Amino acid sequence: MPRPSAREKLLSAGLDTLHRRGFNGSGVQEITDAAGVPKGSFYNHFESKEALGAEVIDRCFQTTSARRAILSDESLSPLERLRRYFDGLAAALEAAEFAYGCLLGNFSAELADQSRLVRDRLSSVFAAWTRAIEGCIRDAQRAGEVRKDMDAATLAAFLINAWEGAVLRARVEKHAAPLEQFNEVVFSKILR
Amino acid sequence: MPRPSAREKLLSAGLDTLHRRGFNGSGVQEITDAAGVPKGSFYNHFESKEALGAEVIDRCFQTTSARRAILSDESLSPLERLRRYFDGLAAALEAAEFAYGCLLGNFSAELADQSRLVRDRLSSVFAAWTRAIEGCIRDAQRAGEVRKDMDAATLAAFLINAWEGAVLRARVEKHAAPLEQFNEVVFSKILR
Repeated sequence: MPRPSAREKLLSAGLDTLHRRGFNGSGVQEITDAAGVPKGSFYNHFESKEALGAEVIDRCFQTTSARRAILSDESLSPLERLRRYFDGLAAALEAAEFAYGCLLGNFSAELADQSRLVRDRLSSVFAAWTRAIEGCIRDAQRAGEVRKDMDAATLAAFLINAWEGAVLRARVEKHAAPLEQFNEVVFSKILR
Repeated sequence: MPRPSAREKLLSAGLDTLHRRGFNGSGVQEITDAAGVPKGSFYNHFESKEALGAEVIDRCFQTTSARRAILSDESLSPLERLRRYFDGLAAALEAAEFAYGCLLGNFSAELADQSRLVRDRLSSVFAAWTRAIEGCIRDAQRAGEVRKDMDAATLAAFLINAWEGAVLRARVEKHAAPLEQFNEVVFSKILR
Protein backbone atom coordinates (compact mmCIF):
# COMPACT_ATOMS: atom_id res chain seq x y z
CA MET A 1 0.00 0.00 0.00
CA PRO A 2 1.49 3.38 -0.95
CA ARG A 3 2.02 5.90 1.82
CA PRO A 4 -0.76 8.50 2.00
CA SER A 5 0.05 11.67 0.11
CA ALA A 6 0.16 15.01 1.93
CA ARG A 7 -3.17 15.83 0.29
CA GLU A 8 -4.68 12.62 1.59
CA LYS A 9 -3.32 13.29 5.10
CA LEU A 10 -4.82 16.79 5.02
CA LEU A 11 -8.23 15.47 3.96
CA SER A 12 -8.24 12.86 6.67
CA ALA A 13 -7.00 15.22 9.40
CA GLY A 14 -9.35 17.91 8.07
CA LEU A 15 -12.37 15.61 8.38
CA ASP A 16 -11.46 14.74 11.96
CA THR A 17 -10.51 18.25 13.09
CA LEU A 18 -13.38 20.11 11.39
CA HIS A 19 -15.83 17.56 12.77
CA ARG A 20 -14.56 17.80 16.34
CA ARG A 21 -13.80 21.52 16.51
CA GLY A 22 -16.17 23.02 13.95
CA PHE A 23 -15.17 24.97 10.86
CA ASN A 24 -14.64 28.34 12.47
CA GLY A 25 -13.25 26.69 15.61
CA SER A 26 -10.35 25.09 13.68
CA GLY A 27 -7.36 26.81 12.15
CA VAL A 28 -5.28 25.69 9.18
CA GLN A 29 -2.36 25.26 11.62
CA GLU A 30 -4.37 22.81 13.74
CA ILE A 31 -5.18 20.78 10.62
CA THR A 32 -1.61 20.72 9.29
CA ASP A 33 -0.33 19.78 12.77
CA ALA A 34 -2.82 16.91 12.96
CA ALA A 35 -1.84 15.82 9.44
CA GLY A 36 1.87 16.05 10.25
CA VAL A 37 2.61 18.23 7.22
CA PRO A 38 4.22 21.70 7.18
CA LYS A 39 1.71 24.52 7.43
CA GLY A 40 3.20 26.14 4.34
CA SER A 41 2.29 23.13 2.22
CA PHE A 42 -1.46 23.45 2.89
CA TYR A 43 -2.03 25.87 0.04
CA ASN A 44 -0.24 23.62 -2.43
CA HIS A 45 -3.14 21.23 -2.01
CA PHE A 46 -6.20 23.38 -1.19
CA GLU A 47 -6.98 26.90 -2.24
CA SER A 48 -8.43 27.73 1.17
CA LYS A 49 -9.83 26.18 4.36
CA GLU A 50 -13.22 26.58 2.67
CA ALA A 51 -12.07 24.45 -0.28
CA LEU A 52 -10.85 21.76 2.14
CA GLY A 53 -14.21 22.01 3.96
CA ALA A 54 -16.09 21.32 0.73
CA GLU A 55 -13.95 18.25 -0.02
CA VAL A 56 -14.33 17.04 3.55
CA ILE A 57 -18.11 16.87 3.00
CA ASP A 58 -17.63 14.38 0.15
CA ARG A 59 -15.07 12.47 2.18
CA CYS A 60 -17.47 12.25 5.10
CA PHE A 61 -20.15 10.80 2.84
CA GLN A 62 -17.70 8.30 1.31
CA THR A 63 -16.53 7.07 4.72
CA THR A 64 -20.11 6.20 5.65
CA SER A 65 -20.93 4.24 2.47
CA ALA A 66 -20.47 0.87 4.21
CA ARG A 67 -23.15 1.89 6.69
CA ARG A 68 -25.58 2.70 3.86
CA ALA A 69 -24.97 -0.68 2.21
CA ILE A 70 -27.58 -2.21 4.54
CA LEU A 71 -30.22 -0.12 2.74
CA SER A 72 -29.86 -2.43 -0.26
CA ASP A 73 -29.34 -5.70 1.63
CA GLU A 74 -31.89 -7.95 -0.04
CA SER A 75 -31.64 -10.57 2.70
CA LEU A 76 -33.71 -8.20 4.88
CA SER A 77 -37.13 -6.70 4.27
CA PRO A 78 -36.93 -3.03 3.23
CA LEU A 79 -38.49 -1.83 6.50
CA GLU A 80 -36.07 -3.94 8.51
CA ARG A 81 -33.18 -2.39 6.53
CA LEU A 82 -34.38 1.09 7.49
CA ARG A 83 -34.72 0.08 11.15
CA ARG A 84 -31.24 -1.38 11.27
CA TYR A 85 -29.78 1.57 9.40
CA PHE A 86 -31.05 4.13 11.91
CA ASP A 87 -30.22 1.80 14.83
CA GLY A 88 -26.66 1.62 13.51
CA LEU A 89 -26.39 5.41 13.29
CA ALA A 90 -27.76 5.73 16.83
CA ALA A 91 -25.34 3.13 18.18
CA ALA A 92 -22.38 4.98 16.64
CA LEU A 93 -23.51 8.24 18.23
CA GLU A 94 -23.98 6.56 21.58
CA ALA A 95 -20.50 5.00 21.34
CA ALA A 96 -19.13 8.52 20.80
CA GLU A 97 -21.08 9.69 23.87
CA PHE A 98 -23.21 11.88 21.59
CA ALA A 99 -20.26 14.15 20.85
CA TYR A 100 -19.70 16.01 17.57
CA GLY A 101 -22.84 14.72 15.86
CA CYS A 102 -23.10 14.73 12.08
CA LEU A 103 -20.61 16.81 10.11
CA LEU A 104 -23.25 17.54 7.46
CA GLY A 105 -25.62 19.01 10.04
CA ASN A 106 -22.84 20.94 11.75
CA PHE A 107 -21.62 22.47 8.49
CA SER A 108 -25.23 23.30 7.55
CA ALA A 109 -25.62 25.27 10.77
CA GLU A 110 -22.26 26.97 10.63
CA LEU A 111 -21.66 27.59 6.93
CA ALA A 112 -24.90 27.54 4.91
CA ASP A 113 -24.93 31.34 4.89
CA GLN A 114 -21.18 31.88 4.86
CA SER A 115 -20.01 29.75 1.95
CA ARG A 116 -21.74 29.10 -1.33
CA LEU A 117 -19.17 26.42 -2.12
CA VAL A 118 -19.90 24.49 1.08
CA ARG A 119 -23.64 25.01 0.76
CA ASP A 120 -23.74 23.58 -2.78
CA ARG A 121 -21.70 20.58 -1.70
CA LEU A 122 -23.99 19.96 1.28
CA SER A 123 -26.99 20.12 -1.01
CA SER A 124 -25.52 17.46 -3.35
CA VAL A 125 -24.59 15.13 -0.52
CA PHE A 126 -27.96 15.50 1.22
CA ALA A 127 -29.60 14.73 -2.14
CA ALA A 128 -27.53 11.55 -2.54
CA TRP A 129 -28.32 10.48 1.02
CA THR A 130 -32.00 11.17 0.47
CA ARG A 131 -32.01 9.03 -2.68
CA ALA A 132 -30.56 6.10 -0.74
CA ILE A 133 -33.33 6.32 1.88
CA GLU A 134 -35.98 7.02 -0.75
CA GLY A 135 -35.08 3.86 -2.70
CA CYS A 136 -35.49 1.77 0.42
CA ILE A 137 -38.82 3.41 1.32
CA ARG A 138 -40.06 2.80 -2.22
CA ASP A 139 -39.09 -0.88 -1.87
CA ALA A 140 -40.98 -0.98 1.45
CA GLN A 141 -44.03 0.52 -0.27
CA ARG A 142 -43.84 -2.05 -3.08
CA ALA A 143 -43.51 -4.82 -0.49
CA GLY A 144 -46.65 -3.55 1.25
CA GLU A 145 -44.74 -2.66 4.44
CA VAL A 146 -45.36 1.10 4.12
CA ARG A 147 -48.51 2.79 2.83
CA LYS A 148 -48.36 4.45 -0.57
CA ASP A 149 -50.36 7.50 0.47
CA MET A 150 -47.27 9.73 0.51
CA ASP A 151 -44.43 9.67 -1.97
CA ALA A 152 -41.15 8.09 -0.94
CA ALA A 153 -39.14 11.23 -1.79
CA THR A 154 -41.12 13.39 0.67
CA LEU A 155 -40.86 10.75 3.39
CA ALA A 156 -37.12 10.32 2.82
CA ALA A 157 -36.39 14.05 2.96
CA PHE A 158 -38.49 14.42 6.09
CA LEU A 159 -36.73 11.48 7.74
CA ILE A 160 -33.23 12.76 7.06
CA ASN A 161 -34.07 16.22 8.33
CA ALA A 162 -35.81 14.87 11.42
CA TRP A 163 -32.80 12.66 12.04
CA GLU A 164 -30.41 15.61 11.81
CA GLY A 165 -32.55 17.50 14.33
CA ALA A 166 -32.62 14.52 16.69
CA VAL A 167 -28.84 14.20 16.49
CA LEU A 168 -28.43 17.88 17.38
CA ARG A 169 -30.71 17.48 20.37
CA ALA A 170 -28.91 14.30 21.51
CA ARG A 171 -25.68 16.31 21.50
CA VAL A 172 -27.29 18.92 23.74
CA GLU A 173 -28.84 16.38 26.11
CA LYS A 174 -25.93 13.91 25.96
CA HIS A 175 -28.57 11.24 25.98
CA ALA A 176 -30.13 8.79 23.55
CA ALA A 177 -33.71 9.95 24.25
CA PRO A 178 -34.04 12.14 21.12
CA LEU A 179 -32.85 9.24 18.93
CA GLU A 180 -35.25 6.85 20.68
CA GLN A 181 -38.12 9.32 20.16
CA PHE A 182 -37.17 9.51 16.47
CA ASN A 183 -37.34 5.74 16.28
CA GLU A 184 -40.66 5.54 18.10
CA VAL A 185 -42.44 8.17 16.02
CA VAL A 186 -40.94 7.19 12.67
CA PHE A 187 -41.64 3.47 12.91
CA SER A 188 -45.04 3.66 14.54
CA LYS A 189 -46.51 6.75 12.85
CA ILE A 190 -44.70 7.44 9.58
CA LEU A 191 -43.33 4.23 8.08
CA ARG A 192 -46.41 2.07 8.45
CA MET B 1 -38.61 54.96 28.21
CA PRO B 2 -35.10 54.85 29.68
CA ARG B 3 -32.18 54.57 27.28
CA PRO B 4 -30.92 51.00 26.96
CA SER B 5 -27.98 50.25 29.22
CA ALA B 6 -24.64 49.15 27.77
CA ARG B 7 -25.44 45.64 29.00
CA GLU B 8 -28.78 45.72 27.19
CA LYS B 9 -27.12 47.00 24.01
CA LEU B 10 -24.56 44.19 24.20
CA LEU B 11 -27.26 41.54 24.64
CA SER B 12 -29.25 42.86 21.72
CA ALA B 13 -26.22 43.26 19.43
CA GLY B 14 -24.92 39.90 20.66
CA LEU B 15 -28.14 38.15 19.69
CA ASP B 16 -28.05 39.65 16.22
CA THR B 17 -24.33 39.16 15.58
CA LEU B 18 -24.03 35.65 17.01
CA HIS B 19 -27.11 34.61 15.06
CA ARG B 20 -25.87 35.99 11.76
CA ARG B 21 -22.18 35.14 12.02
CA GLY B 22 -22.15 32.15 14.37
CA PHE B 23 -20.43 31.98 17.74
CA ASN B 24 -16.91 31.21 16.51
CA GLY B 25 -17.41 33.43 13.49
CA SER B 26 -18.00 36.55 15.65
CA GLY B 27 -15.45 38.40 17.76
CA VAL B 28 -16.08 40.48 20.87
CA GLN B 29 -14.95 43.52 18.86
CA GLU B 30 -17.67 42.88 16.24
CA ILE B 31 -20.28 42.72 19.00
CA THR B 32 -19.12 45.86 20.82
CA ASP B 33 -18.95 47.72 17.48
CA ALA B 34 -22.53 46.68 16.68
CA ALA B 35 -23.63 47.68 20.18
CA GLY B 36 -21.82 51.03 19.93
CA VAL B 37 -19.97 50.52 23.21
CA PRO B 38 -16.21 50.57 23.81
CA LYS B 39 -14.61 47.14 23.47
CA GLY B 40 -13.01 47.54 26.89
CA SER B 41 -16.40 47.76 28.58
CA PHE B 42 -17.50 44.29 27.39
CA TYR B 43 -15.91 42.50 30.34
CA ASN B 44 -17.60 44.83 32.82
CA HIS B 45 -20.88 43.22 31.78
CA PHE B 46 -20.01 39.66 30.73
CA GLU B 47 -17.30 37.40 31.98
CA SER B 48 -16.64 36.04 28.50
CA LYS B 49 -18.12 35.71 25.02
CA GLU B 50 -19.36 32.31 26.23
CA ALA B 51 -21.25 33.97 29.11
CA LEU B 52 -22.86 36.39 26.65
CA GLY B 53 -23.69 33.42 24.40
CA ALA B 54 -25.54 31.70 27.25
CA GLU B 55 -27.58 34.84 28.00
CA VAL B 56 -28.33 35.32 24.31
CA ILE B 57 -30.04 31.93 24.30
CA ASP B 58 -32.52 33.12 26.95
CA ARG B 59 -32.95 36.42 25.14
CA CYS B 60 -33.68 34.61 21.89
CA PHE B 61 -36.39 32.56 23.60
CA GLN B 62 -37.90 35.66 25.24
CA THR B 63 -38.06 37.56 21.93
CA THR B 64 -40.13 34.75 20.41
CA SER B 65 -42.69 34.52 23.24
CA ALA B 66 -45.31 36.47 21.28
CA ARG B 67 -45.08 33.87 18.55
CA ARG B 68 -45.73 31.06 21.05
CA ALA B 69 -48.79 32.85 22.45
CA ILE B 70 -50.87 31.34 19.65
CA LEU B 71 -50.30 27.92 21.24
CA SER B 72 -52.66 28.90 24.04
CA ASP B 73 -55.15 30.91 21.95
CA GLU B 74 -58.44 29.35 23.00
CA SER B 75 -60.32 30.93 20.12
CA LEU B 76 -58.70 28.29 17.90
CA SER B 77 -58.78 24.52 18.13
CA PRO B 78 -55.52 23.09 19.54
CA LEU B 79 -54.60 21.48 16.22
CA GLU B 80 -55.26 24.73 14.37
CA ARG B 81 -52.98 26.52 16.87
CA LEU B 82 -50.18 24.10 16.08
CA ARG B 83 -50.71 24.53 12.35
CA ARG B 84 -50.64 28.30 12.58
CA TYR B 85 -47.65 28.24 14.91
CA PHE B 86 -45.48 26.26 12.49
CA ASP B 87 -46.84 28.23 9.52
CA GLY B 88 -45.77 31.42 11.31
CA LEU B 89 -42.27 30.09 11.90
CA ALA B 90 -42.01 29.04 8.26
CA ALA B 91 -43.21 32.44 7.03
CA ALA B 92 -40.58 34.20 9.15
CA LEU B 93 -37.84 31.99 7.73
CA GLU B 94 -39.06 32.56 4.19
CA ALA B 95 -39.14 36.35 4.79
CA ALA B 96 -35.48 36.08 5.86
CA GLU B 97 -34.76 34.12 2.65
CA PHE B 98 -33.93 31.07 4.79
CA ALA B 99 -30.82 32.74 6.15
CA TYR B 100 -29.37 32.18 9.63
CA GLY B 101 -32.05 29.73 10.76
CA CYS B 102 -32.67 29.14 14.45
CA LEU B 103 -30.06 30.34 16.93
CA LEU B 104 -30.84 27.41 19.24
CA GLY B 105 -30.09 24.89 16.50
CA ASN B 106 -26.99 26.78 15.40
CA PHE B 107 -25.57 26.94 18.91
CA SER B 108 -26.40 23.25 19.40
CA ALA B 109 -24.31 22.38 16.35
CA GLU B 110 -21.45 24.71 17.13
CA LEU B 111 -21.19 24.66 20.91
CA ALA B 112 -22.79 21.54 22.43
CA ASP B 113 -19.37 19.96 22.80
CA GLN B 114 -17.38 23.13 23.43
CA SER B 115 -19.27 24.81 26.26
CA ARG B 116 -21.02 23.18 29.18
CA LEU B 117 -22.55 26.54 30.09
CA VAL B 118 -24.14 26.97 26.65
CA ARG B 119 -25.20 23.34 26.50
CA ASP B 120 -27.03 23.52 29.83
CA ARG B 121 -28.80 26.71 28.79
CA LEU B 122 -29.83 25.16 25.45
CA SER B 123 -31.20 22.16 27.30
CA SER B 124 -33.36 24.38 29.56
CA VAL B 125 -34.70 26.43 26.69
CA PHE B 126 -35.45 23.40 24.53
CA ALA B 127 -37.29 21.92 27.53
CA ALA B 128 -39.41 25.06 27.93
CA TRP B 129 -40.17 25.14 24.20
CA THR B 130 -41.08 21.44 24.28
CA ARG B 131 -43.50 22.02 27.19
CA ALA B 132 -45.30 24.73 25.21
CA ILE B 133 -45.82 22.38 22.25
CA GLU B 134 -46.61 19.45 24.52
CA GLY B 135 -49.40 21.37 26.28
CA CYS B 136 -51.01 22.16 22.96
CA ILE B 137 -50.72 18.56 21.73
CA ARG B 138 -52.28 17.34 24.99
CA ASP B 139 -55.17 19.76 24.45
CA ALA B 140 -55.54 18.41 20.90
CA GLN B 141 -55.64 14.87 22.29
CA ARG B 142 -58.29 15.84 24.85
CA ALA B 143 -60.30 17.50 22.09
CA GLY B 144 -60.14 14.30 20.06
CA GLU B 145 -58.12 15.96 17.27
CA VAL B 146 -55.02 13.83 17.85
CA ARG B 147 -54.92 10.16 18.84
CA LYS B 148 -53.83 9.31 22.35
CA ASP B 149 -51.73 6.32 21.32
CA MET B 150 -48.48 8.21 21.92
CA ASP B 151 -47.75 10.59 24.77
CA ALA B 152 -47.72 14.30 24.07
CA ALA B 153 -44.19 14.74 25.48
CA THR B 154 -42.68 12.30 22.98
CA LEU B 155 -44.58 13.86 20.10
CA ALA B 156 -43.56 17.39 21.15
CA ALA B 157 -39.87 16.52 21.48
CA PHE B 158 -39.93 14.75 18.11
CA LEU B 159 -41.66 17.71 16.46
CA ILE B 160 -39.21 20.29 17.75
CA ASN B 161 -36.21 18.22 16.71
CA ALA B 162 -37.70 17.49 13.29
CA TRP B 163 -38.42 21.20 12.89
CA GLU B 164 -34.83 22.11 13.74
CA GLY B 165 -33.61 19.63 11.14
CA ALA B 166 -36.01 21.01 8.51
CA VAL B 167 -34.81 24.56 9.23
CA LEU B 168 -31.18 23.50 8.76
CA ARG B 169 -32.03 21.85 5.46
CA ALA B 170 -34.03 24.90 4.28
CA ARG B 171 -30.93 27.00 4.93
CA VAL B 172 -28.89 24.67 2.74
CA GLU B 173 -31.46 24.54 -0.05
CA LYS B 174 -32.56 28.17 0.28
CA HIS B 175 -36.03 26.89 -0.38
CA ALA B 176 -39.21 26.26 1.60
CA ALA B 177 -39.48 22.61 0.48
CA PRO B 178 -38.07 21.10 3.73
CA LEU B 179 -40.55 23.18 5.78
CA GLU B 180 -43.41 22.15 3.48
CA GLN B 181 -42.41 18.49 3.82
CA PHE B 182 -42.38 18.93 7.61
CA ASN B 183 -45.90 20.30 7.42
CA GLU B 184 -47.13 17.56 5.14
CA VAL B 185 -45.75 14.68 7.18
CA VAL B 186 -46.52 16.13 10.62
CA PHE B 187 -50.12 17.06 9.93
CA SER B 188 -51.07 14.06 7.86
CA LYS B 189 -49.11 11.27 9.59
CA ILE B 190 -48.25 12.34 13.14
CA LEU B 191 -50.83 14.76 14.51
CA ARG B 192 -53.93 12.86 13.54
